Amino acid sequence: MTPQAAEDPSLHRLLDRRARSMGPTYRLFYDEPLHVVTGRGVWLEDAAGRRYLDAYNNVPVVGHCHPRVVDALSRQAATLNTHTRYANELPVLLAERLLATLPSEFGNVVFTCSGSESNEFACRIAMGVTGATGFIVTAHAYHGTTARLAGMSPSGGRPLGRDVFTVDAPAPDEPPEALADRVRDCIGRMAQAGVRPAGLMVDSVMATDGVVVGPAGCLRLAADAIRAAGGLSIADEVQSGFGRCGAMWGFSRHGVVPDIVTMGKPMGNGHPIGALAARREIMAAFAATRGYFNTFGGNTVSCAVGLAVLDVIQDEDLVGHARNAGARFHRRLQGLEARHRHVAVRGAGLFFGVEVGGGDDAAGSRARRVVNAMRRAGVLIGATGPKGSVLKIRPPLPVAEEELDTIVSALDAALHDA
Amino acid sequence: MTPQAAEDPSLHRLLDRRARSMGPTYRLFYDEPLHVVTGRGVWLEDAAGRRYLDAYNNVPVVGHCHPRVVDALSRQAATLNTHTRYANELPVLLAERLLATLPSEFGNVVFTCSGSESNEFACRIAMGVTGATGFIVTAHAYHGTTARLAGMSPSGGRPLGRDVFTVDAPAPDEPPEALADRVRDCIGRMAQAGVRPAGLMVDSVMATDGVVVGPAGCLRLAADAIRAAGGLSIADEVQSGFGRCGAMWGFSRHGVVPDIVTMGKPMGNGHPIGALAARREIMAAFAATRGYFNTFGGNTVSCAVGLAVLDVIQDEDLVGHARNAGARFHRRLQGLEARHRHVAVRGAGLFFGVEVGGGDDAAGSRARRVVNAMRRAGVLIGATGPKGSVLKIRPPLPVAEEELDTIVSALDAALHDA
Repeated sequence: MTPQAAEDPSLHRLLDRRARSMGPTYRLFYDEPLHVVTGRGVWLEDAAGRRYLDAYNNVPVVGHCHPRVVDALSRQAATLNTHTRYANELPVLLAERLLATLPSEFGNVVFTCSGSESNEFACRIAMGVTGATGFIVTAHAYHGTTARLAGMSPSGGRPLGRDVFTVDAPAPDEPPEALADRVRDCIGRMAQAGVRPAGLMVDSVMATDGVVVGPAGCLRLAADAIRAAGGLSIADEVQSGFGRCGAMWGFSRHGVVPDIVTMGKPMGNGHPIGALAARREIMAAFAATRGYFNTFGGNTVSCAVGLAVLDVIQDEDLVGHARNAGARFHRRLQGLEARHRHVAVRGAGLFFGVEVGGGDDAAGSRARRVVNAMRRAGVLIGATGPKGSVLKIRPPLPVAEEELDTIVSALDAALHDA
Repeated sequence: MTPQAAEDPSLHRLLDRRARSMGPTYRLFYDEPLHVVTGRGVWLEDAAGRRYLDAYNNVPVVGHCHPRVVDALSRQAATLNTHTRYANELPVLLAERLLATLPSEFGNVVFTCSGSESNEFACRIAMGVTGATGFIVTAHAYHGTTARLAGMSPSGGRPLGRDVFTVDAPAPDEPPEALADRVRDCIGRMAQAGVRPAGLMVDSVMATDGVVVGPAGCLRLAADAIRAAGGLSIADEVQSGFGRCGAMWGFSRHGVVPDIVTMGKPMGNGHPIGALAARREIMAAFAATRGYFNTFGGNTVSCAVGLAVLDVIQDEDLVGHARNAGARFHRRLQGLEARHRHVAVRGAGLFFGVEVGGGDDAAGSRARRVVNAMRRAGVLIGATGPKGSVLKIRPPLPVAEEELDTIVSALDAALHDA
């Protein structure tokens, strides 16, 4: 019996019931699974009453169970929950508020239920507008759960879809133009295979590529390259958006204006909502021949939640906090590079990747040991990257300075032992 | 200025803002759009304070803003909202509760955020397990918003995807075996095109085909036909499930045990949640080589909502009510067949299609006139079918006998005038 099961005897039975009813596609984090029962701010609590500092979850971007978000959700759910084929002010307000955060070229917002639905719709628009079928993604990208998006998500060894081609994400010391050079080279390979590019889809923080972040400007040059070949530039902001990277949108540090921006995870602080914003002329070109209706997308309750999340981000200045506290945290994490062998820190805002183990095959095992040691120490992080060797650290944005210190101390100890 | 705009001067400005920010893919119901602001039970209220009897929306299956569902949502949102990579009892309970309503062959439930995500995952499973790529759908089917599902949704003139083939839905007077005969014929056409069938996906009430319903047993025989060719039988219960057709699942009146069942719309009474249930051996075969993770799917809040909806369906005996009140309503609707030319009523439970106008090209216009006249009379219905000539009537299940009478009276008057 694991120590966890000893503390929480109901867990063993729960995991057994879970395996039977939910089945073999489900996976749990950690060698000793975490049985969470409550959450508040940056803290989660398990069934035995133990508290964990959440330094992993980017979905509860304004903190677990933020009272203003819960209140907006509860009030609207008691008032009206209906779809966009009736007129109501809430989806209009949310669309206007989102557009106000985006470059002026963006004209329209369409609502979905998830980042996957947003990225899937981005592909439909790109194919519809360009008449082409090819997509370029980074070599270890993850973009969603649909069949098409699984084929655009080589992360974790998934097979590529037909007409999907990859480019390596920028290496830490590469200049901004390296990614664009590879996109142009990729377009050449596509032409040889008889495939025209519909779009380049890139997660603006390149999380599953190992939180690559990339040199400022690389996404602008890559967008220029795909547009020169007739394709669209799609910024996947499902992970990097809503202040996470120290700006409202991850793409803005690259000075790029994408053609389409997709949103998901943090948009509802856990409530299932996503969206897609597009340049006005692109949405018009798609809508000339095709429609789109999403039953739950833009429902009044989801929009009330989305508005509350934007209110909290603004009123608590979470973007500024992500930038400033994130910069100090970055320096403290970098202090670990001198104290431990083969540790390299990358990040933007409050999204960090800590490469451990120098990239050899044992690095993934070392990262797993660190992740599990941190969990035992009461701090939740994860691992990602091509070899699973990049620690993924991205606490809810309202994380306090002393909580960031706790993360650094716990990581220091875990790296020492792992 | 329309009469609606005269009553509600803010509507014109709202629609203008909506057109600018949400853009051209969005459509509104009715010649005079409805500006809804509150909902309760089977009633919606507009900004001018006028009440409408909702005889259209199948999503709020237990009634708009049901207090038990709102309470479960609000409590859990204030307690914990997190994903399935931590252990928690709520998704396990919901999976167990859903399995208890399904044939014993079903072993596992996987959660999604929408019917589209459920149907998309069903396709991934069918392709993964069979190694084939072909799908058969009905000639005017609608299955969802993704690129793949749009190509499996010929309803509304959408172009078919490659490897997608169609069969006509049963005509009203056809025997149960007619659909299976067409499936076998279709499999022959696929073989000539070099396509092997991965699955047959059918909405169990064939709503967009015109609420065809179909003779009892037709889906069992069709399932036998697809299985004989190595494909899976996928019951799309996104519209027909959760008691709507007078049984928990629409497929049960056909005596079929499908391989996969997909769920969506009514599952959360408006909250974005969907699910897929599969036979144990099918999920195991898929999971042997592939995983599936859905960030929002199975989150603790969505599961609390799903459980509350099941509780209300059970405690208020809504399945029995749909069956019994639906049967009386059916007879009253059939009474209109004698009073009006070219009217034909079909339905199951509380899901009805009323064909108007004898199927010629003017029938769609007549249906639209009826739908708009009913809206002016304060009763909300829609239209569907290949020519848009089938009135779609499906009130929230707790609809009272006198409210059903109101629908019949309003329809009688609207048919008289249209």
